[in-house]
Amino acid sequence: MTAQPACDPAVVDLLGTLAYATLTGFSRVAADSDEAPTTRARVALGRLATMDFAAFERIATRLAEMGVDVDEAMAPFVAAVDRFHDRTAPTTWGERLVKAYVGDGIANDFYRELSAHTDPGVRDLVTQVVDDGVGDDYFAAMIREVIADDPTSAGRLALWGRRLVGEALSQAQQVVADRDSLVELLVGGGQTQGPDLAEVGRMFVRLTDAHSARMTSVGLAP
Amino acid sequence: MTAQPACDPAVVDLLGTLAYATLTGFSRVAADSDEAPTTRARVALGRLATMDFAAFERIATRLAEMGVDVDEAMAPFVAAVDRFHDRTAPTTWGERLVKAYVGDGIANDFYRELSAHTDPGVRDLVTQVVDDGVGDDYFAAMIREVIADDPTSAGRLALWGRRLVGEALSQAQQVVADRDSLVELLVGGGQTQGPDLAEVGRMFVRLTDAHSARMTSVGLAP
Repeated sequence: MTAQPACDPAVVDLLGTLAYATLTGFSRVAADSDEAPTTRARVALGRLATMDFAAFERIATRLAEMGVDVDEAMAPFVAAVDRFHDRTAPTTWGERLVKAYVGDGIANDFYRELSAHTDPGVRDLVTQVVDDGVGDDYFAAMIREVIADDPTSAGRLALWGRRLVGEALSQAQQVVADRDSLVELLVGGGQTQGPDLAEVGRMFVRLTDAHSARMTSVGLAP
Repeated sequence: MTAQPACDPAVVDLLGTLAYATLTGFSRVAADSDEAPTTRARVALGRLATMDFAAFERIATRLAEMGVDVDEAMAPFVAAVDRFHDRTAPTTWGERLVKAYVGDGIANDFYRELSAHTDPGVRDLVTQVVDDGVGDDYFAAMIREVIADDPTSAGRLALWGRRLVGEALSQAQQVVADRDSLVELLVGGGQTQGPDLAEVGRMFVRLTDAHSARMTSVGLAP
């Protein structure tokens, strides 16, 4: 194996967690597509699912170029991501949509924060993967439709959104607490003083604020 | 809209049923991937699912070129395909694999038969969509692994295979009985005498024979 100076453990952790998130995102959106009320929505969700899988393949390719097996890179994050999904299994079409919209939104913000201090190659890859943005608009439009069809659903879906963000932040905090490498990424690597935990706290505030703005934009109380 | 001499109702039915089969195939394999025992198998199944979706997109594009909406073309076949899946919901990993292998095999043979008398453009499209073949080998290898790990599962999986082929043929016969256009395709369009029902019967014998060969090839009693 050739020497790979770019194989920073923090970058492997970042790409490993993002790989597993896109792989489960793919499965989840594909499962959502199977419950879609029309074949048209089903096709649209199927297309979004295949985009998630393409994102996964791009990350796996990058890890392979670094000499890292994607399975090994994902392994430390499987439990937290699976726990999030187990605890937030949607039971209605509206809940599925809000989970896709809110969950992807907060996850994308989290990965953007994690990649802010990495080298431009990694940062560009993460940005490409999280910023496709097509899905967000589509889910937002469908959520507004669900609420327009049944205005009484807005209260239940707002509560659901709060539960989702609570679970998501709790799993994200657990992951960051378990992996010093990720804390380092968040506060900028290479400094001599210990990790700036206040900065980690500020990041979670930014994630929560962005979540509230997303909820408001689809007509749900944050 | 320009005149579309190629817009034969039988071809629209053929492509409509194939479109819905690939779309449900995508959802089903994506759901299977979520139950895979390893992340490696999960990735492999995810890749197969996206290939099914790509096949769906190719068919939808061809229908659009013919001036036909894919939703409308699929509509007559939704009930039969959904009924097949509702009646054959797998409960174990082995059952999922056998369903994917046996179900795809018999469906692909059915579409190949239906396209035999169509114009070369349509026949080539159907052949490309059903003959990718990558999935078959992969599912066959995984079924052999399941049986090697637990030889007692072979009897249960053989019974499951028989149930699958029974349901598949029953739904296929229903679809053909409901759509005269498909009977015409099977016996070659344009002839003046009525459809040759004996030829339709012979096709179902060929489908069953090919199914038995597939079962035998993975070590299951047909």
